[in-house]
This record gives sequence, structure tokens and C-alpha cells, in this order.
Amino acid sequence: MAKDYVLLAVVSLLSVVQQAHFAKQVGSARKKYKIAPPSVTGSPDFERIFRAQQNSVEFYPMFLVLFWTSGMFFNQEITSILGLVYLFSRHMYFTGYAESMKGRIPGFKIGIAVLFILFGLSFVAITTCMMDEYFDFNIAKKISKLFP
Amino acid sequence: MAKDYVLLAVVSLLSVVQQAHFAKQVGSARKKYKIAPPSVTGSPDFERIFRAQQNSVEFYPMFLVLFWTSGMFFNQEITSILGLVYLFSRHMYFTGYAESMKGRIPGFKIGIAVLFILFGLSFVAITTCMMDEYFDFNIAKKISKLFP
Amino acid sequence: MAKDYVLLAVVSLLSVVQQAHFAKQVGSARKKYKIAPPSVTGSPDFERIFRAQQNSVEFYPMFLVLFWTSGMFFNQEITSILGLVYLFSRHMYFTGYAESMKGRIPGFKIGIAVLFILFGLSFVAITTCMMDEYFDFNIAKKISKLFP
Repeated sequence: MAKDYVLLAVVSLLSVVQQAHFAKQVGSARKKYKIAPPSVTGSPDFERIFRAQQNSVEFYPMFLVLFWTSGMFFNQEITSILGLVYLFSRHMYFTGYAESMKGRIPGFKIGIAVLFILFGLSFVAITTCMMDEYFDFNIAKKISKLFP
Repeated sequence: MAKDYVLLAVVSLLSVVQQAHFAKQVGSARKKYKIAPPSVTGSPDFERIFRAQQNSVEFYPMFLVLFWTSGMFFNQEITSILGLVYLFSRHMYFTGYAESMKGRIPGFKIGIAVLFILFGLSFVAITTCMMDEYFDFNIAKKISKLFP
Repeated sequence: MAKDYVLLAVVSLLSVVQQAHFAKQVGSARKKYKIAPPSVTGSPDFERIFRAQQNSVEFYPMFLVLFWTSGMFFNQEITSILGLVYLFSRHMYFTGYAESMKGRIPGFKIGIAVLFILFGLSFVAITTCMMDEYFDFNIAKKISKLFP
């Protein structure tokens, strides 16, 4: 069974590396701008990096749920590619935000778009699965009956 | 196998929609109260909305773990209904908190109650599963032996 | 199937109890140091406890992903023990941080070490699984052929 999820697991591991990298960047920014914990304010440069990481933390569980739902109910391979695109968009977001307020926007928009796609794929796959399970309505079967 | 989890997946998708909605409300409040990112202070109205979302972010992984554990080890249908009640309680919490400090309390309490129930159901189901697996003690079998 | 994950589920339930405990500590600290929500500043003692909890919230999804990946692809029992060590390290971190800035360091370092180990185990197990799945390269088989 684990084999059906191995690509999802690979992308999930990568996503952990990214989250850890973001957390580490905040630590480095603390040293650079001399903001000792527990303080989280004092320098706009630090605050942007901190906000970028916080935002990534907030979006991370949403990404994981959509990613695994799409991967389990729709298709592992396509979902994994979309997952990689999402991680790249978050990289753009983080590095852009660290540089300037406006720099956060392109990566953010791409990330949101990927989440919408993962949501749509999950929604269609789950609806199909539920139709089959609860109403015994199998779309694949119906179509194959139309073309005997 | 995916069919055993389809209702859990539906509620999980809904929960993502809610988390995304909360994040969006913070964005709208930023515009309304003119709090430009990365700042997160400056208006008590904005700060309440921001705290409501932050609290929801903090509770989200705990909810997901209890929800899926209960759904996998106890029962999918009952767990899914409890999940919907939790999402509703979080909606109450968020809208209540956005209006006033006291407004956050009813929704919060209902949410905590649901999490306790999900924990209790998971605990019982997991204990039963472990008794069977590691001590070969099958409660269902023992009971059926008592009434031959 | 659920039986293959029952120990992972036990440790996951424990981790939820810990996260809930941390959140409750912040609530108690609010009362003790008279920091009414939505404010999160005003007393260094409160701020350390708040930061300790925030940091635990940030690390929680990363832990869950590595823990379940290692548990599913590598080995349930060893992963569960590592999970317990992680929870203990987080307990050290939180109580240490609540007392002083320096107090957070030992627990933090142990936690990071456990996450690295879980990552390493997941990485090896997933690579092995992928070799077998996509390149039909089964390490166990190759080794057994070397020693017929």
C-alpha cells in the first residue's frame, strides 16, 4: 500500500525541508538584525522575513491536506508535480518577501492557484468516489455502457 | 481503501476552506483598519480578528490528528458529524471574536468539547485495537463467548 | 490495516495532549502576568512562554510528517520510540524556555536531532521503496542473491 503514496511521501519530505529552511532563515535574521527572542519586532527587514515564515506555517497544514487528498483520491503522479510547483511558489514568496513587501506577491499568487487546482481535483475525485459508494453510481461504468 | 476515508476527506476539504476563509478575513481586516503587513498591531479590532485566526491555525493540526485517528480507528460516519460540529464551533468562535472579546467564548467551549469527545473515541478505539494486536485480547470475541 | 499504524496513532494522540497542554500554559500565563488577549506582549515572562508555544506550533506539522513517513515506510516500533523522545525533548524545551532564555536550548537541540534521524530513516526507506517500484531494483533480493 505504501507504494501508492511513495511520491507523495517524497514531496512531503521536501516540504519539511523547506519549512525547516524558512525557520532557520528567521533564526539567521535574528542574528543579523539583532532581534533576540522572544521579541519579534524592531526591524522591518526582520519583520518581513518573520511574517513570510509565519504565513508559510499557516498555509502548511492546508497544503498537506489538499496535497494528500488529491494524491489519494485523484492521482499520485499529477498531484506530486503540483506539489513541487507549490513548493517552488513558496520559495519565490519567501525570498521575494525577504527583499520587499511587493516581492511577496508573485509567489503568493502562484501558490494560491496551485491550492485551488489541488482543491478542484480533490473535489471531483471525492465526489466520484462518494457517488459510487453511497449511490452505487459508477461514472466509469455508465460511460462504458454507453459505448458497448 | 480510499472509500473508508471518503467522508473524512470531505470534512477535511471543508476544514481547508474554513482555514482559507479565516486567512482571507485577516487580509480584508488589514485593508479595513489600514494595518499594512508585516505589522500585526495598531487596532484592537484588527488584533482580535488576527488572534482569532492565529488561534485557529494553532488548533488546526490538533483537530486533524484527532479527527483522522477517530475516523480511522473508531468510526467514519460519527467522526465526520463531530468534525462538522467542530467546524461550526470554530465559525462561531471566529465571528464572535471578531465582534468582541467575550464573543469568542461560546464557540471556543463547544470546539474544546468536540476535541475531548474525538480524543475519547480515539483512545477507546486504539486501546481496543492494541489489546487485540499485542495481547491477543479481543473484546468482541470475549463478549460473544460469554453468551454462547 | 489500522493495526500497522496503531502505535503511531498512540504517539500522535500523546502529541495532541502535549500541544493542548502548551496552549493551556499560555492561557494560564495570561492570567498570571495579566496579559489580556488579543495582546501578546507586556511581560518578558509571558513572552517566553508564548514564544515557546508558538515555536512548538510551528514544528508540530513538520514532526507529524516525518513521524508518519518514517512510521509508514520504515518501521512502526522504532519510529514510535523516536516520537516519544521528541515529545520529551519538546517538554524540556518548553519548561526550560518558560524559566529562562538559555533554558530552551538543550530540549531544542535534542528535538532537532530526533527530527534529523526521522528524516534520515524516511529518506532511506522511501528511496528503497522507489527503487523497487520504479526501477524494479529490490535491494533485499539483490543481497539474498549474493549469498545463495
